[in-house]
Amino acid sequence: MIDGFGPVTPPDPDIRAAAAQRQQQLTKPVGALGRLEELGNWVAACQGVCPPEQFRRARVVVFAGDHGIARHGVSAYPSEVTAQMVANFRAGGAAVNALAAVAGATVRVVDIAVDAETDDVVGAHKVRRSSGSIDREDALTPEEIEAALAAGRAIADEEIDAGADLLVAGDMGIGNTTPATVLIATLTDTEPIRAVGRGTGIDDAGWSRKVAAIRDAMRRARPLAKDPVELLRVAGGADIAAMAGFLAHAASRRTPVILDGVVVTAAALVAEDLAAGARDWWLAGHRSTEPAHALALGRLRLEPLIDLGMRLGEGSGALTALPILRAAVATLAEMSTFAEAGVSTSDDSAEAEAARPDLTK
Amino acid sequence: MIDGFGPVTPPDPDIRAAAAQRQQQLTKPVGALGRLEELGNWVAACQGVCPPEQFRRARVVVFAGDHGIARHGVSAYPSEVTAQMVANFRAGGAAVNALAAVAGATVRVVDIAVDAETDDVVGAHKVRRSSGSIDREDALTPEEIEAALAAGRAIADEEIDAGADLLVAGDMGIGNTTPATVLIATLTDTEPIRAVGRGTGIDDAGWSRKVAAIRDAMRRARPLAKDPVELLRVAGGADIAAMAGFLAHAASRRTPVILDGVVVTAAALVAEDLAAGARDWWLAGHRSTEPAHALALGRLRLEPLIDLGMRLGEGSGALTALPILRAAVATLAEMSTFAEAGVSTSDDSAEAEAARPDLTK
Repeated sequence: MIDGFGPVTPPDPDIRAAAAQRQQQLTKPVGALGRLEELGNWVAACQGVCPPEQFRRARVVVFAGDHGIARHGVSAYPSEVTAQMVANFRAGGAAVNALAAVAGATVRVVDIAVDAETDDVVGAHKVRRSSGSIDREDALTPEEIEAALAAGRAIADEEIDAGADLLVAGDMGIGNTTPATVLIATLTDTEPIRAVGRGTGIDDAGWSRKVAAIRDAMRRARPLAKDPVELLRVAGGADIAAMAGFLAHAASRRTPVILDGVVVTAAALVAEDLAAGARDWWLAGHRSTEPAHALALGRLRLEPLIDLGMRLGEGSGALTALPILRAAVATLAEMSTFAEAGVSTSDDSAEAEAARPDLTK
Repeated sequence: MIDGFGPVTPPDPDIRAAAAQRQQQLTKPVGALGRLEELGNWVAACQGVCPPEQFRRARVVVFAGDHGIARHGVSAYPSEVTAQMVANFRAGGAAVNALAAVAGATVRVVDIAVDAETDDVVGAHKVRRSSGSIDREDALTPEEIEAALAAGRAIADEEIDAGADLLVAGDMGIGNTTPATVLIATLTDTEPIRAVGRGTGIDDAGWSRKVAAIRDAMRRARPLAKDPVELLRVAGGADIAAMAGFLAHAASRRTPVILDGVVVTAAALVAEDLAAGARDWWLAGHRSTEPAHALALGRLRLEPLIDLGMRLGEGSGALTALPILRAAVATLAEMSTFAEAGVSTSDDSAEAEAARPDLTK
């Protein structure tokens, strides 16, 4: 039996109000920092302190896993790339490593279901080798879905207990946009043809195979749309289930998360069903080119920070957006108030204007 | 007589091609980093080296100046705020300071036409106290426009000679969105009512006064639309002219610039007329809420990186976007190639697929 997630309580509304009040006292016109102001207020509310503190331990966890469906021509890359990329992450040579360095974050990769043997460090939470081919079989057994959700929860605990104050989930797994699209299309009741993207860059024939596989998997998934655990078991995969557990549990532990692309957001969509209200702890980092990603963000009512045509996964979009969140924190935390800086406010101006009519003639 | 700007030669096309080639060898699907790839290639072309180097001395120059038009109720703030904010920048208490720290940039503020006395450091390039009220008089004399353009050029030289490898221009000046809007509306042949925004946050009556002032100024500006120097002299201001000189000269010195909001982009629009091709050295950091900003970006054919409802100036939008440019450089410069990392490519997959048909039955 799977323990429930949550309860999820929202970020502190009183602190959020205090932050909004502080924004009005800082040396800038009211509202002039636009969305940065909302973001800063949200971080303050998540931290329960105003002004907020700059993130000290931003942490990316890349969930790696293979998918049986990748054997059926839905990806431009062979499954062995998943294990090769895990090694690349650990050697520091992947996009996620370069982007994390710029964003002031550190990277952890976990093998949840890579179709290869890995060592005890990266494989400590491994559930199985590759998830089942969801067009024709269940992704996971009942025991495996329990293990995958527990892995995600344990990883969130490990990171938060080690001091992580901002989390990013990333994905790595050849074929993983196929189950992600199945989950999103099922939960948003979307026709496959409107949801399926090119993933890593398949050609037209590959796209047609992917649509067919997703249609087959959705036939198996649709009856389970109201049961998030069964949905993940049958039509998701161990890596996506672990991400969902991670995202739900991070919210219950009051830790903000930046979501990445279509795979992470598919996990988030299910995680919101596992732990209602978890979405209040999440920020959408970017919008990718995958059609299903926009569908999932819309359902979660999350507006992405950037839209740069990215479609890599690994946490790359979230990390590219992370400095914007740092900017929001920095302005709210570090700017002087009008009183501190001795700067006149627009109220002063209104008084000045009342005394000014002769000057404007 | 004003010396010409330029010649402006474009960023190196051969290096750009080499960078695009390198992008295809990095451990990611081709094109998967979206616009980050174009940005990285552009930086490489600007630097003339592939892979590009991470920026070591990113530098913001805030051009401060007052405007006579501000005495006529076009702003929510009184003109004395300009000098107060110059002091705030120097004390490190403004948004630009907080954002520069996050972006790894340093800040310089220059008094070009503040309506107050400042010291020799910030006022070394001062042209006059406040520019003229452009609805009824010329902003500058012929000697002053020459001095303002020369100031911008000298400041660019000072920064580049001191090692700046990325520049950001910022603005500070109560009332400065009024001349900026006049310049943009004149050069894009736009009706004032379609171009005028709320600046720092004026009310409806203030907006009407601003529209009237801009209409009056545009009557004086329109005959000068083909003469960028005269246009700046009559309908711009010393700070905007200095920015235009700075932007044009940075391009001729092959130094990339991130543009900020409506005031800087107005200066850029004129600078492109001063030095054709300068735009190839500029990146649009963000899109602000000022309608004229989008008009100017469209005319310059520059697509902003972020769109977060910001409208502060100071370089704030450019600095919020700067880490995205760093991310682009980092991925192109630091990622491993497929060969280095021992990762299979999609070509390998095509071979694998050719040998795979029996598996898909």
